[in-house]
Amino acid sequence: MASAPSSALNRRHKAIRQSIAERQLDALVVTSIANILYLTNFTGSSAIVVITAEHVNFVTDFRYVTALKETPAANACPGLDLVTVQGSYDATLAGVLAALPARRVGFEASNLTVGRYDWLSHALPRGRESGPELIATDGLVERARVIKDDHEITTLREAARRLSSVARGVVDEVRVGRRERDVALAIDVRLRREGFEKAAFDTIVASGPNAALPHAHPGERTFAEGDLVVLDFGGVYDSYCVDLTRTVSVGRASARAREVYGAVLEAHDRAISAVAPGKSRFEIDGVARSVLAGHGLADAFGHGTGHGLGIDVHEEPRITRPRPGEESAPGRDPKTDAVAAGMVFTIEPGAYLEGWGGVRIEDDVLVTERGVEVLTDVPTELIEV
Amino acid sequence: MASAPSSALNRRHKAIRQSIAERQLDALVVTSIANILYLTNFTGSSAIVVITAEHVNFVTDFRYVTALKETPAANACPGLDLVTVQGSYDATLAGVLAALPARRVGFEASNLTVGRYDWLSHALPRGRESGPELIATDGLVERARVIKDDHEITTLREAARRLSSVARGVVDEVRVGRRERDVALAIDVRLRREGFEKAAFDTIVASGPNAALPHAHPGERTFAEGDLVVLDFGGVYDSYCVDLTRTVSVGRASARAREVYGAVLEAHDRAISAVAPGKSRFEIDGVARSVLAGHGLADAFGHGTGHGLGIDVHEEPRITRPRPGEESAPGRDPKTDAVAAGMVFTIEPGAYLEGWGGVRIEDDVLVTERGVEVLTDVPTELIEV
Repeated sequence: MASAPSSALNRRHKAIRQSIAERQLDALVVTSIANILYLTNFTGSSAIVVITAEHVNFVTDFRYVTALKETPAANACPGLDLVTVQGSYDATLAGVLAALPARRVGFEASNLTVGRYDWLSHALPRGRESGPELIATDGLVERARVIKDDHEITTLREAARRLSSVARGVVDEVRVGRRERDVALAIDVRLRREGFEKAAFDTIVASGPNAALPHAHPGERTFAEGDLVVLDFGGVYDSYCVDLTRTVSVGRASARAREVYGAVLEAHDRAISAVAPGKSRFEIDGVARSVLAGHGLADAFGHGTGHGLGIDVHEEPRITRPRPGEESAPGRDPKTDAVAAGMVFTIEPGAYLEGWGGVRIEDDVLVTERGVEVLTDVPTELIEV
Repeated sequence: MASAPSSALNRRHKAIRQSIAERQLDALVVTSIANILYLTNFTGSSAIVVITAEHVNFVTDFRYVTALKETPAANACPGLDLVTVQGSYDATLAGVLAALPARRVGFEASNLTVGRYDWLSHALPRGRESGPELIATDGLVERARVIKDDHEITTLREAARRLSSVARGVVDEVRVGRRERDVALAIDVRLRREGFEKAAFDTIVASGPNAALPHAHPGERTFAEGDLVVLDFGGVYDSYCVDLTRTVSVGRASARAREVYGAVLEAHDRAISAVAPGKSRFEIDGVARSVLAGHGLADAFGHGTGHGLGIDVHEEPRITRPRPGEESAPGRDPKTDAVAAGMVFTIEPGAYLEGWGGVRIEDDVLVTERGVEVLTDVPTELIEV
């Protein structure tokens, strides 16, 4: 179980209940496991929550019942009604829904599959007179999750502190002749020793020309003199994800390597300085992008400048270019794209040159009332080892 | 990229094309990333495939384009037409579908979310006269995946050989005073050193009373004299998953521990002996279940006897009890539930006694024409360390 205090869970329930009421819903079926963790502290892999104005109906199977019962009172989910699965999850859910007085039941359209939806709508009593109506909702819980509460900020700060400690040690793993996959393993071990439950994603160690692939798998290649090595890793600490990248030079960096590194670092620093409540996520991305363009590296930066961090390692807000027509779409409220105090995300510009290599520098930031707090704390100058 | 030979991919495409044709479909949109790997060797995290009678339209983003181009010819996907994402994945998919002559386009109802389906059906040209019709399909690729081909069997054999080697060494990690989470880390390091890409799931090390929770997270508890310790771990080797559990006694096992262990081992051995082509998966489960019931442990065994292994660590076939009414459902063909040569799954009975502890013993088996081949090879007698 995660360690949010019951009072925090209570506030989260209130926020979701308000969204539910605004949409004239009587209940919301939560199937996203990250959203379930957010609302209940549950860290297992299978559950369904049906939240109503009064209750949190919690459907899970026997594997997790004992763990739930043993949750410390301080972290218990208020209003939780435990329902143990009989038969299948979806059949149990249909039973819970049929027994509710609810008429209009929201579901998470970005999580529920068409197959489960079809099964469920056939399993429920038919017709508006006799059974509940299923209503698609979009991101109700995700929108609450994007602004971190005090418990989450404390957790992410501590996670970032530990990740920074890992990062400062990781430089010692880089030297001529080491194999990418061995260094990736060494990083994963350091993460676990530092108290992370697990890596937040498959650790990336990409050396020499491999560094031109932003999502390279660490492989058999050994580091050679003059390589740039991209080290990108993250950890899950008390269910929250942090993420950091440094690029290190094996031996003396070439003039070109210094140039590209300098451009990426400038983009990184300028983008962080641009972070403040009210700033558009597109604008923050644009700052990094225009710095790189100024160095002739516009085409070398193919991904977004950052992504939100929380229970998921990639969540809202996305610090990216607008998609074609997105920013100017009719009826779009520009406030939708503004970052706000309490958001936590990465800033991670990069430059990737096929056949040559690449550079990425990534830190985690919290938007504050006054501007920005950089949660990670690791030197950013180019290290030659 | 995974290493299936192009000829194997070709046979997989043929099988899927036959299923498509049987359903009078012109194309199938594959969104399940495991199914995409099966059909193309792609090991990235984002792609969509549209398979038609002639082509494999492969939609991915810039991050993976270079990796795809560098795939060795022997493992290349036959008929692959690369489409690089512009804007969003779903917008690019809509463009691909609109450009196809296809009228009836299948999609994977157990993978596509309601939100994506709704977006896609609005984005496509409307009406049967002008645009393609989206048709729900259920498990077309999954049904092909359940019978492993020669490449997959070779890979799973090698993976099981390596996992057995890890398991034989893991016993050395168990001794009084060691902490669950440290032993879990030691297992994960052994997995990586043995050549696994990563753990197939979060390693379980559950000691003493924690062993009563089949899905316990390894925690701060240290092993004490007389504990039973359940060690459950798996690895991903060349994209295929294997999974193994042993239960070890710290010091001398109590009479009760020996009794429970003996019952679980008998259930394990008898269930493996029951595996043969044509046997019902419910019957195999029933063998394990009745052995445990004979020892008064019917209620102590709450999960299924096994699950399929392959690209996913939990896939078909499920070696479980039938759900209420499932076996006798009208129109159900009992052949649906028969295991067949080429299936690979776990046999993992267990007994869990709240407050006391638990035992689980798990091996991986391949159904052969003649019966069964146990892929894992680790002693099963109770070890007291």
